Amino acid sequence: MIIAIDAAGGEYAPHEIVKGAIKAAQEYDVDIALVGSKAILHVLAGRYLNKLNLSIIEANQVIEPHEPPLKAVRSKPNSSIVVGINLVRDGKASAFVSAGNTGAVLCASLLSLGKIKGIERPALGSFLDITPSTPTLLIDAGANADCRPSYLVQFARLGTTYVKHLLDISSPRIRLLSNGEEETKGNRLIQESYSLLKKTDLNFMGSIEGQDISKTTADVIVTDGFTGNIVLKTIEGLGDTFIGLVRQVGHVFSAAYHLQGRTLLRDLGLGSWVRRVDYREYGGACLLGVNGNVIVAHGRSQAKAISNAIGLAKQTVEQDICQMIREENYEQTDYHR
Amino acid sequence: MIIAIDAAGGEYAPHEIVKGAIKAAQEYDVDIALVGSKAILHVLAGRYLNKLNLSIIEANQVIEPHEPPLKAVRSKPNSSIVVGINLVRDGKASAFVSAGNTGAVLCASLLSLGKIKGIERPALGSFLDITPSTPTLLIDAGANADCRPSYLVQFARLGTTYVKHLLDISSPRIRLLSNGEEETKGNRLIQESYSLLKKTDLNFMGSIEGQDISKTTADVIVTDGFTGNIVLKTIEGLGDTFIGLVRQVGHVFSAAYHLQGRTLLRDLGLGSWVRRVDYREYGGACLLGVNGNVIVAHGRSQAKAISNAIGLAKQTVEQDICQMIREENYEQTDYHR
Repeated sequence: MIIAIDAAGGEYAPHEIVKGAIKAAQEYDVDIALVGSKAILHVLAGRYLNKLNLSIIEANQVIEPHEPPLKAVRSKPNSSIVVGINLVRDGKASAFVSAGNTGAVLCASLLSLGKIKGIERPALGSFLDITPSTPTLLIDAGANADCRPSYLVQFARLGTTYVKHLLDISSPRIRLLSNGEEETKGNRLIQESYSLLKKTDLNFMGSIEGQDISKTTADVIVTDGFTGNIVLKTIEGLGDTFIGLVRQVGHVFSAAYHLQGRTLLRDLGLGSWVRRVDYREYGGACLLGVNGNVIVAHGRSQAKAISNAIGLAKQTVEQDICQMIREENYEQTDYHR
Repeated sequence: MIIAIDAAGGEYAPHEIVKGAIKAAQEYDVDIALVGSKAILHVLAGRYLNKLNLSIIEANQVIEPHEPPLKAVRSKPNSSIVVGINLVRDGKASAFVSAGNTGAVLCASLLSLGKIKGIERPALGSFLDITPSTPTLLIDAGANADCRPSYLVQFARLGTTYVKHLLDISSPRIRLLSNGEEETKGNRLIQESYSLLKKTDLNFMGSIEGQDISKTTADVIVTDGFTGNIVLKTIEGLGDTFIGLVRQVGHVFSAAYHLQGRTLLRDLGLGSWVRRVDYREYGGACLLGVNGNVIVAHGRSQAKAISNAIGLAKQTVEQDICQMIREENYEQTDYHR
């Protein structure tokens, strides 16, 4: 299995991306194709080329974080994103991982891989790992800012398929993210989606409010990409504030109680929780509904996060998620408008 | 100044509400009117009636949390919510505080107090107090699930007036909550609101993403009530998870280091942060844009939160916020559709 990595995308590219790719090549049974400037990548990873299952694919253009996606993808055919996605299209890689411009990754995926038949809008599925038990999939985590009820029903179905195979949960519990649990709550989008979801064969269990996201009452939380993105980033920001506070007072505390050399977080048993809310270790989101395996990593991903994203890509390939989605026969379902 | 309190609303009514009201009557220079069943309130607060500036107003009906608001308000004219709001309408109270059915409070306010001239939709302004510096106002925190761009412009103006007078900030920094900082990001609502806000005389500084809510780059964060409610509750839920974790490991930690009798949270200096994310101490949201001062407290408010909400009501009255909003002459502004 070859996994292609966008070595030019993300705030810490190329160094941290390459470090993460090397880490993954050592830890997982995968072949890695680093996509980016050959000259740079040879300097950074040259000495590993013969030792690890690592190769370099030339892509001498870079799509910057704030470039308009469609224009960037069209005008930069040799960018790491376009070249990487094309490797998946051409069967030369099983998956592509990028921490670069998310809009451009979506755009290149749509143009090059195309949507799975019957899918109206592909969506980003991101695991929220803020409770100590099974993670919950948030879908759409940011691909579609404006949604129709039928999209949300498809997101619920995509999420069901993904979680079923990736986490081996036979009948994932679906909930709609809303401003109240009752069917009458929500904005118009949520109210209409609720009544559509009730009619499906999915394990739809009603709505969930913000404070219950971190509880374990859902396996898949369905939302539009605007709300999903904001919720995901709010959690990230609060996690950051929390980590900062604990670290800061940790120094004072350690000194006061002569606990030098100990890590307060570890002592407190909070380490695992911190890891879960920390995007620096977070595995990335899977673009569900396109004809290929694409993982979008956080723009601020460092080596650990990239390596985790590669791990997620590997699982997604192994479970053959695209094929599982195809077998759902979306073109025969009745919630198109 | 008389502040009316809904003694029958909220998960911990009437006991915690009465306790909070007594606390406020002792701490602040306010007269309290407890609105609810006379029989019950005499038992709970009878012995304070002659000692504190406390009175009881009979309201023998209760609107339950999940009753449909309009129907409940119409069919229960003697409910604590309707009676309390009418006290404000009739000038017998300066403000009303309720931890009851939010929809019913909004509904009764609209029917009884009415909107300030030119206001399209009143909105809930809630202070997010998650950073150690000045709090940020989130508006709309949940009154309007479906919004138009013109509403969001009005929310920005309402928030500006409120923060200006309550926090004494001369030119509050306004930001739109979005899924990216650029003007091109956001759903259609946010994109159109952005272009309208640019044309106003407000101190509009662009968009803010979820992870920056807890940073101090905005005094007023503008959003629709659906997103606002979800964000507020997500913060609440994560805060809860965090508090629970710290308390839990705190016991183990205290035992291991023989720190009995000390509060880990206090030792860590995390107490103030915990207070800020803890809805049990949170002051409530102000309903801005109606002809009267109405504070909506959290449904799970206990005594401390109720007392804080009364403190907020007092400030809102003292700053004469309704009059300040009227002086903004909303009927002469041009963003109506």
